Amino acid sequence: MSGLFITFEGPEGAGKTTVLQEIKKSLAARGLQVTATREPGGIDIAEQIREVILNEKNTLMDAKTEALLYAAARRQHLVEKVKPALEQGHIVLCDRFIDSSLAYQGYARGLGIDEVLSINEFAIGDMMPNLTVYFSIKPEEGLSRIHANGLREKNRLDLEELSFHTRVREGYHELMKRFPKRFRTIDASQSKERVIEDVQIVINEALKKIQL
Amino acid sequence: MSGLFITFEGPEGAGKTTVLQEIKKSLAARGLQVTATREPGGIDIAEQIREVILNEKNTLMDAKTEALLYAAARRQHLVEKVKPALEQGHIVLCDRFIDSSLAYQGYARGLGIDEVLSINEFAIGDMMPNLTVYFSIKPEEGLSRIHANGLREKNRLDLEELSFHTRVREGYHELMKRFPKRFRTIDASQSKERVIEDVQIVINEALKKIQL
Repeated sequence: MSGLFITFEGPEGAGKTTVLQEIKKSLAARGLQVTATREPGGIDIAEQIREVILNEKNTLMDAKTEALLYAAARRQHLVEKVKPALEQGHIVLCDRFIDSSLAYQGYARGLGIDEVLSINEFAIGDMMPNLTVYFSIKPEEGLSRIHANGLREKNRLDLEELSFHTRVREGYHELMKRFPKRFRTIDASQSKERVIEDVQIVINEALKKIQL
Repeated sequence: MSGLFITFEGPEGAGKTTVLQEIKKSLAARGLQVTATREPGGIDIAEQIREVILNEKNTLMDAKTEALLYAAARRQHLVEKVKPALEQGHIVLCDRFIDSSLAYQGYARGLGIDEVLSINEFAIGDMMPNLTVYFSIKPEEGLSRIHANGLREKNRLDLEELSFHTRVREGYHELMKRFPKRFRTIDASQSKERVIEDVQIVINEALKKIQL
């Protein structure tokens, strides 16, 4: 496995998606091979699973059923897209991955980080990210960005209580304590340009390590 | 939880499904409340998940993705159908449950019994069956019954190599060692009448225990 697997994590409205695209461009401009993706990533089986998760008729869906479906879609996206790209030596930038399930479902929804970790470890095996860039921003600020900018439609999660988003943040903080080597925190309340710069720095550090 | 949760397990062609219906009738005739089911059990969300699993176009489906999807469908069927029936004091007879995943995917497909057990423990929590009736039959005999009787169409699993079905049997034997209190073995090579009689005996034993 010669590539580098980098995930972007953080609350809603932290700017992950926009910054990821900019980072992709700048890495590609340096002649590096980059794959930018997010689950379900256009993988047909993972899309079918996502349809079940998001089907509005499925009001009876149990939280554990949902967590298992996310893990299943993650597995398939990993096997079909992330793993082949890494094997070809690509830098893979993935918008949300295992830590989103751990923070949102494990911690904030109360299923338990260890419990959700166990099914995700089954799903991903030894394919933990080499680097996880955490976009730190106060929930109020992230949410107000989404609402003010009108960058995208509000989704179900945006409409949750602020208290839920506060729990998500606590969940991520818990994960940083558990995985200190893998997590790097970026102050996402800064200007887009400064955020991009900071992300570049931690990615360059990670690139140096694998070249040693 | 005042009901009794009984699962029927065994290889293809062992007669589980036929016997289960007979047992249901005879328990109901004794005035007992019985729910007979099998996954996905008509549960809409579980049916949607099963469609993804069985979709013939999904040739790229990874074995772990499949195991997670089975666990997800199991969870939903358990929450919507099995658990409410048990809470109403029913005897629930379920045609295949967790042990099928452990024997087929965990052991025979090589994912590992412990690994498949861990995601299924997440799915079912403390809802392990009170009694698991294992229909013991040589794979050759089970398969030849299916082919000879023309009871139903051959399915994908029937067409697998005999060696696969032999591994399934080994898998079940491994599970009996792990869960000796829960498993009761029935000689399924006997006549249907004798098999029904033997199943009645082990179910009566289990009923006596919960009445103590």
